[in-house]
Order: sequence, then C-alpha cells, then structure tokens
Amino acid sequence: MEKQIITISREFGSGGRLIGSKLAENLGLPYYDKNLLDQIAKENGYSAAMMEEDEMRARNSFLYSLTNAFGAGGYGADSQSLNEKFFMAQFDYITKLAQEGNGGVIIGRCADYVLRDFPGVTNIFIYADEASKIARAVENYGVDEDGIRKTLQDVDKARANYYKYHTGRRWGEATNYHLCIDSGQLAVDDVVELITRYIELRTKA
Amino acid sequence: MEKQIITISREFGSGGRLIGSKLAENLGLPYYDKNLLDQIAKENGYSAAMMEEDEMRARNSFLYSLTNAFGAGGYGADSQSLNEKFFMAQFDYITKLAQEGNGGVIIGRCADYVLRDFPGVTNIFIYADEASKIARAVENYGVDEDGIRKTLQDVDKARANYYKYHTGRRWGEATNYHLCIDSGQLAVDDVVELITRYIELRTKA
Repeated sequence: MEKQIITISREFGSGGRLIGSKLAENLGLPYYDKNLLDQIAKENGYSAAMMEEDEMRARNSFLYSLTNAFGAGGYGADSQSLNEKFFMAQFDYITKLAQEGNGGVIIGRCADYVLRDFPGVTNIFIYADEASKIARAVENYGVDEDGIRKTLQDVDKARANYYKYHTGRRWGEATNYHLCIDSGQLAVDDVVELITRYIELRTKA
Repeated sequence: MEKQIITISREFGSGGRLIGSKLAENLGLPYYDKNLLDQIAKENGYSAAMMEEDEMRARNSFLYSLTNAFGAGGYGADSQSLNEKFFMAQFDYITKLAQEGNGGVIIGRCADYVLRDFPGVTNIFIYADEASKIARAVENYGVDEDGIRKTLQDVDKARANYYKYHTGRRWGEATNYHLCIDSGQLAVDDVVELITRYIELRTKA
C-alpha cells in the first residue's frame, strides 16, 4: 500500500486521538497530533499559549468572528492577523507534509480541508453517543463525571466553530469525510480495523 | 448473528439502494425499499400518487411546512392531516417490523429516527462525490448527464427537507448514524463488506 495520508476529526471523548495513534503505528506512518502541530507553530514564532487562547476563543463563534475581523481589544490590533497566521503556519506545514510523500496520520487542525485538493487523502470522522464519551473521558483523563458533560459540549462547540470559521464548512457533516464511525460500541482496535479495511478496498487496483 | 435491523439513508446516485439490497441478500434479511413501503401505505388507504406528491412538495421546505401547518389550498383542508397520516402509517409499519424480530434492511423513510429507541438497530448513511453520483445515475437510470446535476440536488434537498420536517434533525449529520460511507471510490460489494464488518465487530461478545 502506498504511503497514506489520513486525517482524523473527532468529538472529544470519542477515542479519535488514540485511534489515530494506533492506526499510524499499524500502518508505519508518522503521527501528528495537536501537540506536535502546536510545536511547529511555536517554531514559526507563535507560543502554545497563544494558540490555546485562540482555540478557547472559538468557543464563542460570534466573539471569535469579531476578534478575527477587528482584532481583540485587549490584545492590540495585531490579534486578527495573529489568529490567521496561526492557522496559515499550520496550513503550510500540513501541505508540506502531504507534498513530501511520507504519509501520516493527522489529528484535527482542519487537515481534511487543508488537503482537499490532494486526491489520495482519506478523511475520517469519529464520534460517539454521550454516555460512551463520558465513560471514556472519565477513564482516560481522570475527569469528574459531573462536570464532564458541559466540557464535552464546550470542546466540541469550539472545534465546530474553529472549523466553520477557517473552512466555511459544517464540522461533522458526513459528506466532508470518506468514512464516519460511531466508536461508542466498538473497541479502539475495531475502529482501526474498519479504517484500514476502507483504505485497502479503496486503493486496490 | 442475531436478526439485524439496518436502516440505510442515502444520497441520490450513491448506490445506497443497491447496497441495501445486496446487504439484505447476504445477511438473509427481508428488504424494504420505498416501493414496498409505498405499497403498505396504499394498503392503509393512501395512494402512491398522493405519497409521491407529498414527497415532491418537500422539495420546497417553506411550502412544505406551510401546507402541513395549514393544509394545501388546492387539496382541501384535509391535506395537512393526510401528509401526517402518510408518515404515521409508515412509522407504525416500521415500528411493527422492528418489534416482530425478523430483522430487515430498510431504505429511507426516516427509519433511523422511527427506530431510535430500539438499541440493536444499525443506521447507515451512504453518499458520494458529485462526479461519482452523476456517473452512477447515468449508468443505472439511463438519465441524461446534462440534466442530472440539478435532479441530484433537488432529490437530496427533498430528502433533507422531509427528514428535517418529520424528525427535527439534520439529514446527513454524521452523529445521526452509526456508520457513514463515501461510496464514490468503492464497489457496491466493498461497501456491503464494510457495513457487515461493522455489525460483526459491534455485536461480538
């Protein structure tokens, strides 16, 4: 199988990151998650804290559009261009990854949109019912079950706003992806198997 | 494997109906497509022509809501209740199918929503890129390539409106389904294999 590029968009608590990590391991591909991409942005002169702040601001779509359009009052007139520059640094890096031909599994960062003109890319969306996501979040992140419901909603709302703002598309709309899988009733390895099989079937001669 | 109920929602030209038919054949399940469900509605006292008209009206969501709320002027004051009764006759029949325990593959008709409280049901959404859908529609239905683009959009818009009106949900939103597959670069048998494998993985002890 040719070196694949697989983008994974995921709801918080759906196991998407772990699925992506195992998929990369199984297929012998480099793995790029949020932390690494943040690192890259940092190398381009942006701090991880700035990026975090930008992402949190995306939780309020109106405010987000406003600060992007006019600059955030408290951060000076350059904030608008900074937000855009964060995105563009990632955009350029992801594009470069695709061009280099070594393949990879990329988590989040609108990578499906960034690579929309690369025909070999496989775009995946992972989600789950709320009960499964809460159970997973409690188990993996040791968070408190009572507070987690709102966190799940807030994080996913931020991701949807971020995606909408930068791509003009609707996050979680099936047609943006090649395969969307409800991970709620599956093991991580099962989801990895389904994605792998999809790619095998698509790329067979 | 226990007798499965699988609902298939699909974009026009995505091959969803054929996929559902093969899936039913492979799994030894009864197959219920639009024509059969129309037949059932007919047995309940509604003509296929009336149902067709209702579905076409759904192509204009505003008009559809209006005629459902106030009755269509030209059709008399009973039109509103007729539209609702069409849906309810199907609703009852689909529910009865699920309760009888013989399983089945059901195409369209908001069956994913109708059966949302039946835990064993598997909901699938099939879609594809426009070029693949046009190629398939030309091949399968012998339609003219020039006129087909608008037809594709119109039929899918009608399906989205119909779904939205009867369920309050957004058609094609990944989280409404267990598995969403882009059939554009796959053979019908490949999609059938992926759905079958998903069900096997989910139902293994």
